[in-house]
Amino acid sequence: MATGDEISNKRIIFRDYISGFPKESDMVPTTDSIKLKVPEGSNSVLLKNLYLSCDPYMRGRMTPSDSYVPAFTPGKPISGYAVSEVIDSGNPNFKKGDYVWGIVGWEQYSLIENPHPMALMKIDYTDVPLSYYTGILGMPGMTAYVGFHVLASPKKGESVYVSAASGAVGQLVGQFAKLMGCYVVGSAGSKEKVDLLKNKFGFDDAFNYKEEHDLAATLKRYFPKGIDIYFENVGGKMLEAVLTNMALHGRISVCGMISQYNLEQPEGVNNLMQLIVKRVRMEGFIVSDHYHLYPKFLEMMKQHFMEGKLVYVEDTVEGLESAPAALIGLFTGRNVGKQVVRVSHE
Amino acid sequence: MATGDEISNKRIIFRDYISGFPKESDMVPTTDSIKLKVPEGSNSVLLKNLYLSCDPYMRGRMTPSDSYVPAFTPGKPISGYAVSEVIDSGNPNFKKGDYVWGIVGWEQYSLIENPHPMALMKIDYTDVPLSYYTGILGMPGMTAYVGFHVLASPKKGESVYVSAASGAVGQLVGQFAKLMGCYVVGSAGSKEKVDLLKNKFGFDDAFNYKEEHDLAATLKRYFPKGIDIYFENVGGKMLEAVLTNMALHGRISVCGMISQYNLEQPEGVNNLMQLIVKRVRMEGFIVSDHYHLYPKFLEMMKQHFMEGKLVYVEDTVEGLESAPAALIGLFTGRNVGKQVVRVSHE
Repeated sequence: MATGDEISNKRIIFRDYISGFPKESDMVPTTDSIKLKVPEGSNSVLLKNLYLSCDPYMRGRMTPSDSYVPAFTPGKPISGYAVSEVIDSGNPNFKKGDYVWGIVGWEQYSLIENPHPMALMKIDYTDVPLSYYTGILGMPGMTAYVGFHVLASPKKGESVYVSAASGAVGQLVGQFAKLMGCYVVGSAGSKEKVDLLKNKFGFDDAFNYKEEHDLAATLKRYFPKGIDIYFENVGGKMLEAVLTNMALHGRISVCGMISQYNLEQPEGVNNLMQLIVKRVRMEGFIVSDHYHLYPKFLEMMKQHFMEGKLVYVEDTVEGLESAPAALIGLFTGRNVGKQVVRVSHE
Repeated sequence: MATGDEISNKRIIFRDYISGFPKESDMVPTTDSIKLKVPEGSNSVLLKNLYLSCDPYMRGRMTPSDSYVPAFTPGKPISGYAVSEVIDSGNPNFKKGDYVWGIVGWEQYSLIENPHPMALMKIDYTDVPLSYYTGILGMPGMTAYVGFHVLASPKKGESVYVSAASGAVGQLVGQFAKLMGCYVVGSAGSKEKVDLLKNKFGFDDAFNYKEEHDLAATLKRYFPKGIDIYFENVGGKMLEAVLTNMALHGRISVCGMISQYNLEQPEGVNNLMQLIVKRVRMEGFIVSDHYHLYPKFLEMMKQHFMEGKLVYVEDTVEGLESAPAALIGLFTGRNVGKQVVRVSHE
């Protein structure tokens, strides 16, 4: 409904707080209008959103809990990481035509008032597709870097286990581990994903956790000498099985616990004594605490890309209206690789 | 039954593996005989045991599990830390009249073959009672030091919570925390122990966990801004309540989980997501991995003793035959302070 110099702006509105699994109807498409100019004299940036990122942590924002990111506001758009093009700017750090990545509303156009330098980052390196900044070069890429390289202190020859291994973060952790000279095994929820892990991402081995009835025994088979590093994306019974199989002085980087996000009552983990028995260090982290390391990460990644050492798989759906189903699909494992929504063509 | 130059040697024999709470009848007093000389040409040391240490970890040795210390052998004496006097030695590192601390059998006299330098340590500093080497200057003291100073990286002004706080380890952790300029609260299981924490050990505050029906709410009251360091001795529901109350970037040193040792099925901890939300580092340790730090620890402790900065409470029972009940008492909280058994007078 453009009036005057306004044009229509499709948006996805967060309906209300939920419990249990999110449904498509929790996210309501609507159409507003927006002026394609920043207010005179303002510090704002007007963005045309190109790619939206679907990430598991967003489930936490659908519940009014004391999570590490603020909950969504009912009646306002869903928000999340995205890649966008600057179409107008009153801010000295951004100009028309710049590409940026950061947090925006799920909408075609976003007006960002007083952007924080860490919340909206300019994209300078464009030898890779822009969508990579929702994943391998964005928040999930940094997450893999922080959890693996910064927290887990990996050493050549160590044994690494990654759960949810074909996702945006997991696929990169596995590749980092191989580049370090580690032995790495991943788990995922379908034959297709397991094939990807073994044949595309170069994991030494992989298994479909849905086909295993005794996860502790499965892990014992893949890690007869124990797991030195576990990159935790899953939680619950998987964590319990891992604890039983940790090697002495093992490290667990706790990135997420996707198996628990939609449960009314989380599963209890009953063998934490293994932390003592095996002298394990288990550490939770939030990637945004570590964004000061982004330039260092980016340099490393450029080098890897130049040498052709990284592969990356995205699962892209078309159109803002496809975003709710894509987000929900994360929790049933529908996506194969990083889930991206293309809102506009570049 | 002394024959020739042998004399009688009372011992406490481990009957058989158990499940659930240990009972006195699991430890059987018996009398053997022993020659008070080391075998000709051997490397052995013959000890007269003065003080035995009762420690919670010993429960783990009563079950044939893959714990961090080997299980006791049915039919052989219970073994544990003790302070002893050398009465004969074929070993160049020890001579008659030396006092030592280390691991021996629960018996009046122990013959130690080829003592490992880390398993039997000579006592040089004797300005404090010898029994201190079963506690504040022995394994439990080092445990407090490693878990607090080495792993938890304490800083002045931080908030510290200690469970099982009046025990051998807890009482010292609280004092270390006060010496660092931290705010420290302890919990214990009786009014008498809570009084000790507040009035003798100098904790800023303390509570009786048995009188609290909502541990998470209790901790919230004592730590409105959250817990920076938790020294974990208890596990289970206590750990769950603590996780809910951790401050950002908190540290948990996992020393023990005494509430779980006698359960057939350990309690599940269902809020490990808090590790992420609060960016918590949780680390299990075994003190013996850190014994190379003992000289540094001892220097620090001597200094504290000279300046009169440490207090220490022992609960001493008399006679080897009292040892089984004393050990069992740890799991019902019968002891007040470090549980010691005096076997012989010095």
